[in-house]
Amino acid sequence: MAVVDLNSDMGESFGAYEIGDDASMLSIVSSANVACGFHGGDALVMHETLRLAKENGVGVGAHPGFNDLWGFGRRPIQGDRPEDIEKQMIYQIGAIQGMATALGIRVGHFKAHGALNNMAAVDYDLALATARAVRAVDPQMIYVALPGSAMERAAESLGLCVAREIFADRAYEDDGMLVSRKKAGAMIEDADEAARRMVDFVTSGEIESVSGKRIPVAIDTICVHGDSAKAVAMASKVRAALTAAGVDIKPMVDTVKAG
Amino acid sequence: MAVVDLNSDMGESFGAYEIGDDASMLSIVSSANVACGFHGGDALVMHETLRLAKENGVGVGAHPGFNDLWGFGRRPIQGDRPEDIEKQMIYQIGAIQGMATALGIRVGHFKAHGALNNMAAVDYDLALATARAVRAVDPQMIYVALPGSAMERAAESLGLCVAREIFADRAYEDDGMLVSRKKAGAMIEDADEAARRMVDFVTSGEIESVSGKRIPVAIDTICVHGDSAKAVAMASKVRAALTAAGVDIKPMVDTVKAG
Amino acid sequence: MAVVDLNSDMGESFGAYEIGDDASMLSIVSSANVACGFHGGDALVMHETLRLAKENGVGVGAHPGFNDLWGFGRRPIQGDRPEDIEKQMIYQIGAIQGMATALGIRVGHFKAHGALNNMAAVDYDLALATARAVRAVDPQMIYVALPGSAMERAAESLGLCVAREIFADRAYEDDGMLVSRKKAGAMIEDADEAARRMVDFVTSGEIESVSGKRIPVAIDTICVHGDSAKAVAMASKVRAALTAAGVDIKPMVDTVKAG
Amino acid sequence: MAVVDLNSDMGESFGAYEIGDDASMLSIVSSANVACGFHGGDALVMHETLRLAKENGVGVGAHPGFNDLWGFGRRPIQGDRPEDIEKQMIYQIGAIQGMATALGIRVGHFKAHGALNNMAAVDYDLALATARAVRAVDPQMIYVALPGSAMERAAESLGLCVAREIFADRAYEDDGMLVSRKKAGAMIEDADEAARRMVDFVTSGEIESVSGKRIPVAIDTICVHGDSAKAVAMASKVRAALTAAGVDIKPMVDTVKAG
Repeated sequence: MAVVDLNSDMGESFGAYEIGDDASMLSIVSSANVACGFHGGDALVMHETLRLAKENGVGVGAHPGFNDLWGFGRRPIQGDRPEDIEKQMIYQIGAIQGMATALGIRVGHFKAHGALNNMAAVDYDLALATARAVRAVDPQMIYVALPGSAMERAAESLGLCVAREIFADRAYEDDGMLVSRKKAGAMIEDADEAARRMVDFVTSGEIESVSGKRIPVAIDTICVHGDSAKAVAMASKVRAALTAAGVDIKPMVDTVKAG
Repeated sequence: MAVVDLNSDMGESFGAYEIGDDASMLSIVSSANVACGFHGGDALVMHETLRLAKENGVGVGAHPGFNDLWGFGRRPIQGDRPEDIEKQMIYQIGAIQGMATALGIRVGHFKAHGALNNMAAVDYDLALATARAVRAVDPQMIYVALPGSAMERAAESLGLCVAREIFADRAYEDDGMLVSRKKAGAMIEDADEAARRMVDFVTSGEIESVSGKRIPVAIDTICVHGDSAKAVAMASKVRAALTAAGVDIKPMVDTVKAG
Repeated sequence: MAVVDLNSDMGESFGAYEIGDDASMLSIVSSANVACGFHGGDALVMHETLRLAKENGVGVGAHPGFNDLWGFGRRPIQGDRPEDIEKQMIYQIGAIQGMATALGIRVGHFKAHGALNNMAAVDYDLALATARAVRAVDPQMIYVALPGSAMERAAESLGLCVAREIFADRAYEDDGMLVSRKKAGAMIEDADEAARRMVDFVTSGEIESVSGKRIPVAIDTICVHGDSAKAVAMASKVRAALTAAGVDIKPMVDTVKAG
Repeated sequence: MAVVDLNSDMGESFGAYEIGDDASMLSIVSSANVACGFHGGDALVMHETLRLAKENGVGVGAHPGFNDLWGFGRRPIQGDRPEDIEKQMIYQIGAIQGMATALGIRVGHFKAHGALNNMAAVDYDLALATARAVRAVDPQMIYVALPGSAMERAAESLGLCVAREIFADRAYEDDGMLVSRKKAGAMIEDADEAARRMVDFVTSGEIESVSGKRIPVAIDTICVHGDSAKAVAMASKVRAALTAAGVDIKPMVDTVKAG
């Protein structure tokens, strides 16, 4: 039987500021990428997010980003050396590991956030820095990467366990890369279509490009979003469709180990 | 033979901003209290401080503070609940543990910074929150406290290993408490006097109050400072005098275990 | 005919984080207290808030707070000297004046935020520091204060124009002070009751205490909130009731000049 | 008689963190570029810097940067729209104008900091955004730019008064642009050579490129640094040499008006 993980970013609220519908997402996903206090999140939010994830049987991962709260980690910041990014990743992973230890759970995976993730996807040195950070704190930690990205290669080169991720709401080019958001059709807006595609991709082991080309991909986890009511609705439909199609939804620590 | 630890705060630089003479202090002290990024310090500074401490055979501890970079953790901030402080401590301890893991060393002790330390010294609920944080992430971690403080009682109540700390540059009241900085004579300005006092206190197992009263105190560690050339010189004299008097200077993880 | 101003805090969003329903409040109030980037707000949010206020004919004021984004300016921070607070106020007022100049409008009033406002209400030195800041940048700027507070006295002592403020959702003690939030009955929860009270207070020139005592107060402005749908609904009812009672609602720059 | 301004960045300390030797530089330069709290500086530092500049008869300018304290404004941050940068400039200029007003002085010029300055030098849209910000708050404010840069063209297109700036410690290419720091010989390390060059350039009205080419440039201001003892010594020598050669050193508000 096919099995896949559903992951979503959460724990990105900060102080008096709330963002995202974490409560809803925790009833939909099997893995939570939890912000680590640099681009979003704080110690209280992190604790509450981990506590709720534990309560919901949802796996947790570190979701570190640039030290750019105002930009929410979405601004590409140049000028940091890879070894500096490595240390900033270690700091953030350590912080969430401490919190997880206090709650009696384990941080099972790593997924870089926003601009850092986008930059590392195409910059091997940067990708390697993030992978070194993961290996340095916990070599068993799963490293989430886009299939075909520099991050996938970097993590594999260090012997890390890699979870290949696809996006429920994105279209793909013939080479398996994401269609740029600047192009029309980059986003899958319709929840039903997204759900249908995910069932197709997971059960067939292939993603379909904008031109109709079928590309074999070992899919471990599907990224869904919770930043709007519409996004939550799509995530919910994706889950329902997968379940209806007999796909088992499990935390990536289970799915990737099984792979 | 008498044995004692010398500790100092360090790793408090931030980005382009340098503060303190860490390099000098690492050749003087046996334990380093390393800032954790809230009141000072950052991931790069933390990494470099831990690396140098390891190279110098200096023990390292977490030195977390209020989330107040501008105030350098020195402003008393009201309004946080003890359980919120607990989570902020866990976050910061976890971060430095992650960095220590990456460097193959262990975070051996905990010492709260600045205003938080001052507040917790007299507020049992707050003290207990910091002690709970330590227990939650590593029950073997040594908890540094002023003898007679709420922090000492709180840590003991949770079964933590406590290191009693005295200050090389502070005068003491008859009840063993620090003379308030607002009073004349609160600070020991003369390095030779500070050195003489430390040798006396450690070898006798008693501290002498401003009135001349001798108070029995189990001294595990002496706090010295590195924030000015004068402070570094005092720290250096204290170390030399202790060594000359045959006192063994060792990281508190050794001294306290021995105690 | 009676006239009064309705004021509300706004412009407190930050980067990707949204807080408050500013759009709704701008259609209800006559004066906007706009965050200045320390406890909340940023340059983009400030620009948009001022632009919308101008579009809606709503007067704008500086709403500076402690430099505590995480705590949203709600944590009482000790340890700043009054002259330091004065400089932080000047910085924030200057920032919003610059933005207002760029938009061709004027910053008409000053209202301190959160914990700073609470502390200055009872600390004359701190109150005086905020009043000196206002006088230093624009002696014509209106200073918003609770009647009977240290802020009112401080601003008057410097010859500033003072707007006396009451709260739509708070109960009052016999001495005209706010009932502490720790006491039952401190908050007026019912929107209709709040609206009825405001009409009574403004038209009679007296506020009624919890014991029924009538206290003469020169009311210039009423504070309403926009931090929840319920709060917005109350603000809306207060405005409607005042208008129905023939009370003219005008920006405080007009009402206070008229007073 | 030839006349020129000497400018330097200052007021970049933050809270407990001190950076730069502002006191020394204020006795050397005629114009101070004062940090505005985003990449460095705070309200207290700004106040003290302006107060000392006033005392020393040194002109003051706004020196705003990216909102990146950790990176000290030196990291190129992508992803901000020009209109967002414009608002961030307005905020920062307003803040320092407020402080200057409180001290009875005027903010005479604008000079962008670090990575923002480097990016705007070659990005016309970004340059125009900074120039619009200046015009919006004070069209009389002098705009400091590298001769030949996009910033110079943008400021001129808006009718701003432009001060052309050269660097005491940098070599120039044949097209008048700075030699990249990545190339050997980019930096003038020797203080005497720097001093000799500045006298030559200012008195001849030409800068000399690395190949010996003489390029006519209307020089209004020379940038010197105060971030190390060596830098301060160079600044001091440059001033002494200019004075010895009969060059008058005056704040750019005077030199540029005279031009």
